[in-house]
Amino acid sequence: MPPENRSTQPGTMATNCYGKSRVRLTKIVRQGDNHDIKELNINIQVQGEFDRAFLSGDNSQIIATDSMKNTVYVLAAKNEFNSIEKFARILAEHFIKAYKHVSGVTIEIEEDLWQRVVVDGKAHPHAFFGAGGEKRWCQVTTDRKHATVSSGIRDLRVVKTTASEFWGFIRDEYTTLPEVRDRVFGTTISSTWVFHEADPDFNLCYQKIRFAILETFATHYSLSVQQTLYEAGPTALDRCASVQSISLSMPNQHRIPFNLEPFKLENTNQIFVTTDEPFGLISATISRK
Amino acid sequence: MPPENRSTQPGTMATNCYGKSRVRLTKIVRQGDNHDIKELNINIQVQGEFDRAFLSGDNSQIIATDSMKNTVYVLAAKNEFNSIEKFARILAEHFIKAYKHVSGVTIEIEEDLWQRVVVDGKAHPHAFFGAGGEKRWCQVTTDRKHATVSSGIRDLRVVKTTASEFWGFIRDEYTTLPEVRDRVFGTTISSTWVFHEADPDFNLCYQKIRFAILETFATHYSLSVQQTLYEAGPTALDRCASVQSISLSMPNQHRIPFNLEPFKLENTNQIFVTTDEPFGLISATISRK
Amino acid sequence: MPPENRSTQPGTMATNCYGKSRVRLTKIVRQGDNHDIKELNINIQVQGEFDRAFLSGDNSQIIATDSMKNTVYVLAAKNEFNSIEKFARILAEHFIKAYKHVSGVTIEIEEDLWQRVVVDGKAHPHAFFGAGGEKRWCQVTTDRKHATVSSGIRDLRVVKTTASEFWGFIRDEYTTLPEVRDRVFGTTISSTWVFHEADPDFNLCYQKIRFAILETFATHYSLSVQQTLYEAGPTALDRCASVQSISLSMPNQHRIPFNLEPFKLENTNQIFVTTDEPFGLISATISRK
Amino acid sequence: MPPENRSTQPGTMATNCYGKSRVRLTKIVRQGDNHDIKELNINIQVQGEFDRAFLSGDNSQIIATDSMKNTVYVLAAKNEFNSIEKFARILAEHFIKAYKHVSGVTIEIEEDLWQRVVVDGKAHPHAFFGAGGEKRWCQVTTDRKHATVSSGIRDLRVVKTTASEFWGFIRDEYTTLPEVRDRVFGTTISSTWVFHEADPDFNLCYQKIRFAILETFATHYSLSVQQTLYEAGPTALDRCASVQSISLSMPNQHRIPFNLEPFKLENTNQIFVTTDEPFGLISATISRK
Repeated sequence: MPPENRSTQPGTMATNCYGKSRVRLTKIVRQGDNHDIKELNINIQVQGEFDRAFLSGDNSQIIATDSMKNTVYVLAAKNEFNSIEKFARILAEHFIKAYKHVSGVTIEIEEDLWQRVVVDGKAHPHAFFGAGGEKRWCQVTTDRKHATVSSGIRDLRVVKTTASEFWGFIRDEYTTLPEVRDRVFGTTISSTWVFHEADPDFNLCYQKIRFAILETFATHYSLSVQQTLYEAGPTALDRCASVQSISLSMPNQHRIPFNLEPFKLENTNQIFVTTDEPFGLISATISRK
Repeated sequence: MPPENRSTQPGTMATNCYGKSRVRLTKIVRQGDNHDIKELNINIQVQGEFDRAFLSGDNSQIIATDSMKNTVYVLAAKNEFNSIEKFARILAEHFIKAYKHVSGVTIEIEEDLWQRVVVDGKAHPHAFFGAGGEKRWCQVTTDRKHATVSSGIRDLRVVKTTASEFWGFIRDEYTTLPEVRDRVFGTTISSTWVFHEADPDFNLCYQKIRFAILETFATHYSLSVQQTLYEAGPTALDRCASVQSISLSMPNQHRIPFNLEPFKLENTNQIFVTTDEPFGLISATISRK
Repeated sequence: MPPENRSTQPGTMATNCYGKSRVRLTKIVRQGDNHDIKELNINIQVQGEFDRAFLSGDNSQIIATDSMKNTVYVLAAKNEFNSIEKFARILAEHFIKAYKHVSGVTIEIEEDLWQRVVVDGKAHPHAFFGAGGEKRWCQVTTDRKHATVSSGIRDLRVVKTTASEFWGFIRDEYTTLPEVRDRVFGTTISSTWVFHEADPDFNLCYQKIRFAILETFATHYSLSVQQTLYEAGPTALDRCASVQSISLSMPNQHRIPFNLEPFKLENTNQIFVTTDEPFGLISATISRK
Repeated sequence: MPPENRSTQPGTMATNCYGKSRVRLTKIVRQGDNHDIKELNINIQVQGEFDRAFLSGDNSQIIATDSMKNTVYVLAAKNEFNSIEKFARILAEHFIKAYKHVSGVTIEIEEDLWQRVVVDGKAHPHAFFGAGGEKRWCQVTTDRKHATVSSGIRDLRVVKTTASEFWGFIRDEYTTLPEVRDRVFGTTISSTWVFHEADPDFNLCYQKIRFAILETFATHYSLSVQQTLYEAGPTALDRCASVQSISLSMPNQHRIPFNLEPFKLENTNQIFVTTDEPFGLISATISRK
């Protein structure tokens, strides 16, 4: 170790935090022959009196991130929970209670979803297949007084092949996009909602809001991504009274009609170039009135 | 342009090919109000008399890869097809017929799968959501005499939480793995099958083989990944007479029991570390006798 | 179009924004035989009076995101700029000036970096190879009164093989990590700095801060990731007077000593398992005093 | 365990193999204060008498893939090697010698490359930064009689801004691409070469061939990707007598001139849309005469 480790440079700490990311947990709950599987990816960040570690390498206040990782597995073993929100709350409360110098904790959990394999018309008790790219997500942030729970959906890929228009937008010297009365509308929805109730039914809310979004996407006659996105917000609030506000984000993943004219064919709204980039990105937060 | 473009170095052409990759097509078939969507990612490779381009920059035999891309969209517009295999065949035959100096063509198509959104208990006519990470795949290779069609599944993620053992393997100085009588078995299956019939029902075969694999995975009592993988092969051949052979590949994506002993807890086969790497990789090809 | 597009649900718009993401531009500046290449990835987001589009599908205030994309290429053609920060400023100012109902703009640019190929000891005038995974980044945010410029580095991968310790941290019932006096320290640095000068030399600042970070990483005797991260902050502020504050983020990408004891070998700090996850994640913002 | 595990289905094993993938090793060699770091990603596949595991779940011939992983770390500790090729050979020979029923082994190694940080004009003895996306690669395949060593480069990203033409290609009803006399040529080169010498200087060959490819790319006046790709082959063979043949693969990553006409501007070969897909894909193998 060198004789001197203290920084002698100008500058002052504005903010800092640290934690462990991508702690991956599989928990299996075995009730007789019937098994449930949870596959979670957990991020932890803490704030508090950690300045001595940053300023002088004194680690006496540092909870090793390896210990945080251990804590995830230990608390998963010790506790029953039926939603990622509840497990996030268990973790957040633990760090606040166990360490007096921790002033804030953020727990984020992403859940890979599994569906049961169906054999002979029956859901199999212990075999599962991947239920899509879609993920369930939550975040619990807490200081020593209040906790906030947000939940969400990530990567819900959808497309509709009609009932979507886009016209009447600003036409100026930078505009070349034609107006269109029947376009393909494809997006990958992310949504986050914030609860105002202390102990909502997280699983029921997830199901209701997920369906509100899917149903709105399917049935809303769209004049713009903006309009459909907004429409989903109040619909979700209407379906789930536990939620105070909802944010949605929709990349507009364009399907561009392929120009068949050089080949003496007409494109009857059938043949498209699928693109990922560039993409429009529309987002909004809708609050309960 | 420089006066001299001919290579003067030693060396002789052994093989060459070229083509266009990742041509992305969305095709929508509209039958009244009911729409179907196909999202395909197409790769084309051709072989033939292209040496002059490689050796001296004479492009007179070169079909521009941009023209190949155009061809995909034009033939998608001109033709009806109900499976990726049929469209791959249309493309392969086109290149062989249209260009005399092409001796071989390989078309590969990967299909992103969509499910209909269900609203009020009914499948929606034009709104879809992503049916998972799983993709359907095919390859048609043809020379001027024969064509071969292979089909497959890519990225079918599965896990079973019991009915899997692994013991009795070689124990030597490099072995530390304990024997285990009840382990989690997770994998992401890829499978490719080769047809011996000229005109099979590609969609039916896909459904039958996909289910044969899923069902075997769910119901087979596994003594090793090798055994379960092999078991799926003959089961698939049994279900689909059009197929001559089937290959399967299974990465063994380990869930490692978390050691709870330092925390004075017992891990009752519940708490696992989910890992992606390293992974075992097991593969085999099973042929009809 | 349906007779009624107005949402009748409860809920009120809290915030919204939209724009175009991943607009990819290659700009080549040709000065005689000597060429420069810039490869940029541009994100645009605008805020303003867009509620009518969200609430009722009235697009009369909407700048199509396709027009935003066009604007990037048109302004890149019309303007000379020698840094991504200057181009971001040109774009931000354009949207504010051209559209009265736009109240805020955020432009983000990420630059892929190229190095000249060296032939016969000389930098080639027009041939380049990829200068690593590292990217240069900037963000300009502006409302109708003030603009803020931030710059940064993304994905600067580094490792040091000694001069790093980690001990003296909290040992409690969740702790199993041994103390270590000589460990491998690997991370992928991201850093963002905010300017307080109106017209700094962005390129010089980038070079100086990048080197301050690399040099600190190399020469600082580390008692924790926290300490090394903090040390880099004031060093960077010291080197570049134009900057008001700097944020750094360092994932601790662990190299775990492989346990050679079962094989009757000693691991003399030579043989490690390289891991990506889980990883520690440490971040801080350091401000000029 | 169930009473009966034997497959009763029709079908016969055609081929099988298995092994461990993505074994990630960091090896640090410390010579006094000067350290070297190797970061390797290793894949192992073995073939041999493993049918009993596949057919009946009898694992008595199975080397657990976990033991293969251990073997990588143990042999890395026991042996000195100055190239990935030599370590791959050590591993391949080990599996052939240690297990009589193994008939074939394939070892593949990919190396992440590091550069020393330069401080005060001197290469630092123990601090490194990422030397780009480019990776070094090798493969050793061996049966009980012969071994073959291939080496290569992966992901060498290059671009040239002039001295590239493309014209004179087939123009037919599928062609819309204009002929171009000055285009941007960008690609990500992969190359694999096969040795015919028993004990070549692998590191020297890598440096010479890598430079032959880069130099050819920079200095060759290109009439097509095909021609430049071919030109690199004999040049590499000329520079490195130990090599029997070389394969190259070049995706043509198009930069498409942005159409500025609608904006009443001329695109003087300056402003391009950077694209990843679709891409041309050109490959060839060149052998020593």
